[in-house]
Amino acid sequence: MYIGRVVGHATSTVKHPSMKGCKLLLVMALQGDGRTIEGDPILVVDKLGAGKGDMVMVTSDGIGAREMLGCKNSPVRWTVLGIRDKR
Amino acid sequence: MYIGRVVGHATSTVKHPSMKGCKLLLVMALQGDGRTIEGDPILVVDKLGAGKGDMVMVTSDGIGAREMLGCKNSPVRWTVLGIRDKR
Amino acid sequence: MYIGRVVGHATSTVKHPSMKGCKLLLVMALQGDGRTIEGDPILVVDKLGAGKGDMVMVTSDGIGAREMLGCKNSPVRWTVLGIRDKR
Amino acid sequence: MYIGRVVGHATSTVKHPSMKGCKLLLVMALQGDGRTIEGDPILVVDKLGAGKGDMVMVTSDGIGAREMLGCKNSPVRWTVLGIRDKR
Amino acid sequence: MYIGRVVGHATSTVKHPSMKGCKLLLVMALQGDGRTIEGDPILVVDKLGAGKGDMVMVTSDGIGAREMLGCKNSPVRWTVLGIRDKR
Repeated sequence: MYIGRVVGHATSTVKHPSMKGCKLLLVMALQGDGRTIEGDPILVVDKLGAGKGDMVMVTSDGIGAREMLGCKNSPVRWTVLGIRDKR
Repeated sequence: MYIGRVVGHATSTVKHPSMKGCKLLLVMALQGDGRTIEGDPILVVDKLGAGKGDMVMVTSDGIGAREMLGCKNSPVRWTVLGIRDKR
Repeated sequence: MYIGRVVGHATSTVKHPSMKGCKLLLVMALQGDGRTIEGDPILVVDKLGAGKGDMVMVTSDGIGAREMLGCKNSPVRWTVLGIRDKR
Repeated sequence: MYIGRVVGHATSTVKHPSMKGCKLLLVMALQGDGRTIEGDPILVVDKLGAGKGDMVMVTSDGIGAREMLGCKNSPVRWTVLGIRDKR
Repeated sequence: MYIGRVVGHATSTVKHPSMKGCKLLLVMALQGDGRTIEGDPILVVDKLGAGKGDMVMVTSDGIGAREMLGCKNSPVRWTVLGIRDKR
């Protein structure tokens, strides 16, 4: 689990059926200084309505992802856990 | 599992219901020299009462996290296992 | 889960039986600038028909992989989730 | 799974009950040259009796860890698999 | 899952009983150029007969490892999936 900023999203017509209707965000991790973001973007399924520029809490738990998508055989692992409150 | 220092916390109003009432800590890893901390902060759920500056033992086990939260469908993975004794 | 480009494939005669008939792609991760790819290639099972040069969404979920392969004891973890639409 | 050297241990009074009586080792990974160790220490539960300076085989499997600890809800993931024979 | 070269093996007398009779290989990852290998060696259980110098496909799936070893409580995670065909 970490905190990152939404830097964009991805679209895919050919995909696993469990992702139908899901928003796929590209998220980059918050660095140690607590302000800059860096690294490779991770692909994250969002059901909470996060948008570009939001700071989000993301997790890699596959069991929780399957519950969230209501699909027992989904291969999705990364999902948005929460949207960080603005300070 | 690793040892790290609590460097802050995060708050989130829009979040997965299983995290209601949980404290979300930002933890940075202890480095090889056994004293300095560095790297990107990891987001960790705490039920043991760790505070800023404490050295904590953290783990990424999702099954254990779901037991700790009493919620079978939580996507939480990282939790505080223990607070390291001060020397 | 991340986005990467298919840079090649691998063949193997001596292998786990659950991978029979599967295409094994070598995928390199999209970098933070959203254009270049870099890093070590990951080995990914594909059932969606991705080819060399395609941008694909990949995941490391073992439970989803076993469903995709129709094999309860497969040790496969990385699979292609979707093919990113061309812009 | 990797091979590393035991560089110390950690103690914790406030901890998850499943770790009661367990030795918590700090282990650093063997590098590519097969001799030096480096990187950040990982925290590993040991039931095999490894001591400081020993080369150990470590694994991150949570299901195996729960069996080893005899506790279905333990969040422990990293355990000592074996002690490498001295050459 | 990735492709790597077998650079050696490890032996251990004191170990988890599920590993009895297993060959433990040290494998280093294939780099982005598709020819050189680098990084820290990973410890991998092999049942396919790979030898030093072979290019192997390796995976970190614990459920598949337990099936391969015929042992429900093994903490092993990394296994050899296949031996890459020589070109």
